[in-house]
This record gives sequence, structure tokens and C-alpha cells, in this order.
Amino acid sequence: MLESLREEVLEANLELVRQGLVIGTFGNASGIARREGLVVIKPSGVAYEFLKAEHLVVTDLEGRPVEGDLRPSSDLPTHLVLYRNFPEIGGVAHTHSRYATAWAQAGREIPCFGTTHADYFHGPVPITAPMTEEEIRSGYEANTGVVIARRFEGLGVERFPGVLVHGHGPFCWGASAREACHAAGILEEIARLALYTLSINRESSPISSELLDKHFLRKHGSGAYYGQR
Amino acid sequence: MLESLREEVLEANLELVRQGLVIGTFGNASGIARREGLVVIKPSGVAYEFLKAEHLVVTDLEGRPVEGDLRPSSDLPTHLVLYRNFPEIGGVAHTHSRYATAWAQAGREIPCFGTTHADYFHGPVPITAPMTEEEIRSGYEANTGVVIARRFEGLGVERFPGVLVHGHGPFCWGASAREACHAAGILEEIARLALYTLSINRESSPISSELLDKHFLRKHGSGAYYGQR
Amino acid sequence: MLESLREEVLEANLELVRQGLVIGTFGNASGIARREGLVVIKPSGVAYEFLKAEHLVVTDLEGRPVEGDLRPSSDLPTHLVLYRNFPEIGGVAHTHSRYATAWAQAGREIPCFGTTHADYFHGPVPITAPMTEEEIRSGYEANTGVVIARRFEGLGVERFPGVLVHGHGPFCWGASAREACHAAGILEEIARLALYTLSINRESSPISSELLDKHFLRKHGSGAYYGQR
Amino acid sequence: MLESLREEVLEANLELVRQGLVIGTFGNASGIARREGLVVIKPSGVAYEFLKAEHLVVTDLEGRPVEGDLRPSSDLPTHLVLYRNFPEIGGVAHTHSRYATAWAQAGREIPCFGTTHADYFHGPVPITAPMTEEEIRSGYEANTGVVIARRFEGLGVERFPGVLVHGHGPFCWGASAREACHAAGILEEIARLALYTLSINRESSPISSELLDKHFLRKHGSGAYYGQR
Repeated sequence: MLESLREEVLEANLELVRQGLVIGTFGNASGIARREGLVVIKPSGVAYEFLKAEHLVVTDLEGRPVEGDLRPSSDLPTHLVLYRNFPEIGGVAHTHSRYATAWAQAGREIPCFGTTHADYFHGPVPITAPMTEEEIRSGYEANTGVVIARRFEGLGVERFPGVLVHGHGPFCWGASAREACHAAGILEEIARLALYTLSINRESSPISSELLDKHFLRKHGSGAYYGQR
Repeated sequence: MLESLREEVLEANLELVRQGLVIGTFGNASGIARREGLVVIKPSGVAYEFLKAEHLVVTDLEGRPVEGDLRPSSDLPTHLVLYRNFPEIGGVAHTHSRYATAWAQAGREIPCFGTTHADYFHGPVPITAPMTEEEIRSGYEANTGVVIARRFEGLGVERFPGVLVHGHGPFCWGASAREACHAAGILEEIARLALYTLSINRESSPISSELLDKHFLRKHGSGAYYGQR
Repeated sequence: MLESLREEVLEANLELVRQGLVIGTFGNASGIARREGLVVIKPSGVAYEFLKAEHLVVTDLEGRPVEGDLRPSSDLPTHLVLYRNFPEIGGVAHTHSRYATAWAQAGREIPCFGTTHADYFHGPVPITAPMTEEEIRSGYEANTGVVIARRFEGLGVERFPGVLVHGHGPFCWGASAREACHAAGILEEIARLALYTLSINRESSPISSELLDKHFLRKHGSGAYYGQR
Repeated sequence: MLESLREEVLEANLELVRQGLVIGTFGNASGIARREGLVVIKPSGVAYEFLKAEHLVVTDLEGRPVEGDLRPSSDLPTHLVLYRNFPEIGGVAHTHSRYATAWAQAGREIPCFGTTHADYFHGPVPITAPMTEEEIRSGYEANTGVVIARRFEGLGVERFPGVLVHGHGPFCWGASAREACHAAGILEEIARLALYTLSINRESSPISSELLDKHFLRKHGSGAYYGQR
């Protein structure tokens, strides 16, 4: 079942590797069939080079297995919370990509230092609060999703296609697994540029709100004029 | 029309990718046929792997389409302002290459820390002023060219084959699209060396004016003695 | 003799190179046949591209040659001390990989800044004390093992699959040469993430002990639930 | 003439490129036939991909052309001064490799932070004084060699296989062009490790003189015991 979604999710997982975003087996992408209420995700701890579409795991939105013999990624509960809280999204990608993870470890949101950033995020890349002892001890993976959802109150997933989980790494999303994976690659580049920027000038300032709006809105929303019609 | 210029501009665009200067689809090169007053440029938001000579867009110096069905790069107006203001140049290349962009984001000109830099730029790599609210709101892309031209009053495009646009990234130029693309690669290396230099010693000093002149003038101008006759 | 161990140790040595952990000829992996009390190790200063299983050197736990015409790696005495002190380990890998070596040179343990680290090390990556004049002058390579063993009093090699030798570089271990080599790759990534983290925020804090325990213990020990059954 | 030296010098020049030490056309290696008093060097500004043994230029120790139609590298006078001052050396390699050049631009010798460094340099990597106005204006390239020779009074080219020229980049040497090229690669790694070391801890200390001696002398000189007999 869900053959084309399986193929897309497989491809997104492999693309994370091709983009150099995966360290070891740290990375997973999933996609959702909204009508059926089913999620397709990578199995846990399986080497990417052996990964095939039939290894992917299908669950419902409560994480109950529907198809597949392997255990799903241990981050599945995080993905599920995101799908339940953000009805606009169709795919989620999680990596430990080096630069975005470094910002998550440094406990800092990524300031919008330039137009590359502004083309994709309508402001700083948000970071969650550190998780509490209670959130970690019980239901840790689901609570990872909960702290993301809490951080996004008032933010809008379409204006911010990803987040940094404090002390952990990035989660990204989009209309599909493919777009989530694309957002993960862009976030890594933004994080890298921002680290370099600070290395040159620790007092670097974010760009003006006019420049931020100009770049974000020429690519997104009703007034967009970037790319082909 | 302009078949050989199309081929050269295509090649320059692909060379930007091969040199690792392009993030996502951020990058474009153009060339001008001065006699005909026509510019050939990459279309907007088209993936490089599918780019062919026939996809390139031809416009006049006011940006009016002359040939091609696709929208030109959204940065076309910047290129046109540069061609109108700098009659010496035959090609323009724009990238978001990582190190040059980081300097643009840090809001700093690149000091001439060494002879690699001095072989190509006859002083610090200039940076534009931040754009004003008014310059951003209306005619943003053309105004990007205007702030570059303003920064170059008294500088000379032959002594400085590129510039950093504040909070954005580098624009480079040369006698042809190919040379503009070469300058973009060199600028990236200079920017990288300079970041490393600061990482070692934040109080690093620029080289002396004698060393700067020696290196620039042994490669450029009437007294050059570098390379083959 | 020990053909399959030879093959595994050869493969581990080549894997160190493929992972980019080796500078010049600085790197060596070994494995032990505990029942026989024999160690298989790379010969000293032999280029990796010519390395074959028959070049590997077999010695007993006192370093007496048992098989092979070549001199063993000059680091053999370090490996032997580790095998004698840590009966749990079946393989050792030593590299001068860039980021882990930089931490060793900086004289700093690597703080546990994030969950990537916590998945493999149950706390900061330990660093040895600088070696004394006496330890260096006589029996230097064996004493390198001695200072590691001293640093590990009370630590546990299963909770910490590697160490930084002060002013030198990392030594890693595991149940086999292959796992030691895997640990060397992970340690390099952890070291790299930690350097980037400090570059963003020099006051970065380690993650909480709850988050550290959660990540380490979900992959290791009796309560593990990561990966496939 | 000098066919085998030509082949070795060609190979050394290409190896500089393969090792990633060359930016643009910045890099050149030469070798000397001491008996004949002839030097073989790369021609100036020729792209590496087209370089063949017959393009190499042969000159005497005063730089007078003996064979070859192309101009020699503009750095030839520097090489010649080195060959005249250091009778022990058989090859010279010059690059603008990124990390070594950054230290040269930062105006800092490279402290001996670890054993990787100590295996090749018997102390900090030396840096020349900045060149004076007079040294730059007339006979600049030869004077580059002169300031190197001056810096090496009392140092010994066998204990230090390279130097940083202030504001410029590294020159390395060895018994042959091949060894000079190897030293250039090692120096780049040492420079990189040292930059990373400072990024972690700006107060990093050099290793002790005992550890420095131990590592240098186990690979070099009469007491060496590293590698095969």
C-alpha cells in the first residue's frame, strides 16, 4: 500500500545522505497520506545503503503499526506530533547535519544575517526551550514534538520550514517528504553561512525587516515573482 | 541568435556549479554583446542539471525580452545596471558562495591580508552600503546595481573585479562571462583565506602598499610580467 | 594463522582511510584473539594503498613477534597496554583525525554539548594528563597506554569508547577492530560538532544529565530500545 | 635532457594539485640536478591540466634559460636563492594552500601544538620578517629567497622542511621535488590542526620539549625507529 508515497519517502531519505546531512544513521524522513491518516517512515538504525522501499514502516497517526516488520525510527513519535499539530505539512525530515546541529547545541536561534536565509525563513530560525526533566523521563520522543509545537505558537510552519531542538538538532518540514528534505539542506547552508558570519564579525547585525520581507515575499505567497510561472 | 555567446554564458553558469559556488539555485552568469546591445542570462529558478543553451534568455539593455520563453533571472535588472555603468565589462556572475557571502553578511570589506588577494584586487574587496527602505521597496533588483555603481565611484572595475552587496552576496565581472565566473571563484578563495586569517589572529594587518602594488601590477597593466607573453 | 582476524583488521585500517580519519600514514587499527592471546596490527609506516592482509603483524601480548616480517606499528606497545588493562575490548584504533586531534592539542576534554555525543559517550570525552618527562624518555609508547589506563580508573570503557591523549590524538576501542574503527569515526564527528558549537557560543553549556542518560541508555545496556531487536 | 628529473618535477607539480594545495595556478615545484647545476621548474601561469614534461623549463643556477620555450615560473628566482643557500635540498615546492597561507597572512609562526607537528618540524614552523619597501621594489622574487635564508640562520633545513613567507604563503623543500611536495602537504595539515586548536582554546600551549624531541627524533636522525628498516 501507499507505493508512491513509499518511493518518495525512500528517495527523501537517500537524498538526505547524498546531501551530506546524515552522520552515521542519524537521519530520517517521513511522509503522510492525509486522506488515509497513514504515515510512512524509515525503520530504526538500518544502514542507508541497504534501505529499500519495502523496509519502510507504515503506521497510523497514533503510531500503531499498519505495515512492515521492522521497528520504525525511534523518532516516529516526534513526527506524529508534528503531523497532528501542523495540518499543512506533508513530510518531515530530521538530521544531525553539522552546522544546524551546532546551533542547536549552542542553544541559539539563527539570526537572519542575509538574503539567502530570508529567501526561506521569514525571520530567525527558531529554537525550542531545553526539555525539562519530566519531559525527558517519560514520553521523550513525543515530548520532543510537543516542545516544537509549543515553540511554534504564533509562528506559522509555512513561514518557518524548520526548527532547532535545543541540544539535539534540526527538524524540517514541507508539503511533501521531498520538500522537507530540501528544507533540511537549505537550513544546513543557512546555519553554515551564519557560523562563518559570526567568525568574521561577532557583532554582525540581522538584515533590516524591509530586506527580510522583500526576499521572503518575492518567493512565497501571492506576490511572488521568483522562478517560472 | 548569439549562439556563441549563449554557449559561453551556459558554460559560465555550469562552471559556477562545478566550482562549488552555487547554493541551491542561487547563482547566475550573463554576458553582453556590446555591438548589438543584447544581454544573455540564465532563466530564473531553473535547475542547473537541466540547463541548456536554448533556455537562456536574451534581452536588450532595458530588460525587454528579445528571445526565449522563460523568465530571466530575477537578478537581471542588477546585471543591466552594471552593464550600463561599466562599459569595460563583458560578463557578470552572481553567487551566494559561502565565504564571500559570509563577509557580505558580516558587513565587512575584505582586507588585503596577502598576496593571493593582491594578485586580483588592488586593495580591499569593497562592500556596498546597506540598502535603504526606499531602495528595497521599489525597483529592488535595479537598485542593487545602483548601490554597486555608487560604491564604485572612483574605484575602477578593472582594479576590482567584484564587490560584496551588504547582507546579500558577491557580484563579479570581467571581460567576458567566463572571466566573471573566474573572478567569482577567486573572490571565494580570498574570502576563505581572510576568514581563516582572522581566526588565527584577530589583529591581522593588511600587507604593505608596496607589496600590494608589486603583486597587482606584476599581473595587470603595462608592466605585467606574470604568465606567458 | 588468524586469517579472519587479519581480514577484519585489514578492513578496519582501510576503513579509517575511507572515512578520512588518516593524515599521511598516521593511523592504525588492531584486533585481538583473546583465546590465543595474540594481537594483529598494521606494520609501521606502510602506505595504505599497498597494504594487504599478509603484511599485518602478529604478536603476543608482550609484543613478541609471532608472524610477519615487517616491523609492527610503533604504537603497538600502546595497544598492548590497552588490551591488558581493558579485558572487555577486542579492537583498538588510533588516528590523528583533524577535529579529535585538535581537542587533544588544545588540552581539553570534549564537553557533551548534544545528543549525538550522548548516544555514544556517557559524559565528556576524557583526556589524559600531559605525559611527564620520565614517561616520555623511556618506554614512551607503552606509557601512552599507561596514562590512558590511569585516566580510566573508575570510568568504564563501555561507557566511553575512546580517549584523547594530551597533545597527541585519539585512541578508540570496541568489541572488535571494526567497532573501534566505527568509534573513531563517531568521535571525529562529535569533536567537529563541539568545535562548531564553541565557534557559535563560547559559553555553550553541556546538556542536562537527564538528557545525557536518556540518549546513552536508549542505545546501550539492558533498557535499550534503539535499532532493530 | 634531464628526462627523469623532468618526470619527477612534473609529477610533483601534479601531486600538489591532487592534494588540493593549489588555488588557481598558484603553485610550483622544482628540482635540481646538483652535478649539472641545473634546475627544472614549472612554466609561469600554465594550467595544470595541460602541463607536460616537455613544457618544463630548465635553467642554470643564475636563472639563464638552458632548455624550453616557455617563461619559467615567476617564482624561479626564489627557488634559485634557496638552492644556492641550502646545499642539502634537492627540491622546492611553493603553494598558496589555504591553512598555511592563512598563518602566513596572520603573521604568526605555527606553534608546535602536538605530535603530528613534532613528527616533521623540530619546533614552531618559522615565518619570515615582512619584506621591506626596498626588498619589494627591486629583485622582489630573489629577495623572497633572501628573507627565507636570513630567517634560517641557525635553524637547519633538515629540521624544518618549510617556512611561511609573511603575507604570502609557504615554501617547502626536501631531498627531492617529491619530498618537497610531501612536506607541503604535511605543512598544510599541521597548519589546519593548529587553526582548529586555537579555535577550541586560544590559550593552547605548545607540547613539552621532551615530547617534541621524542617524536622528531624517533623519525629523523641516527636514533630513528619509525617505519621499516
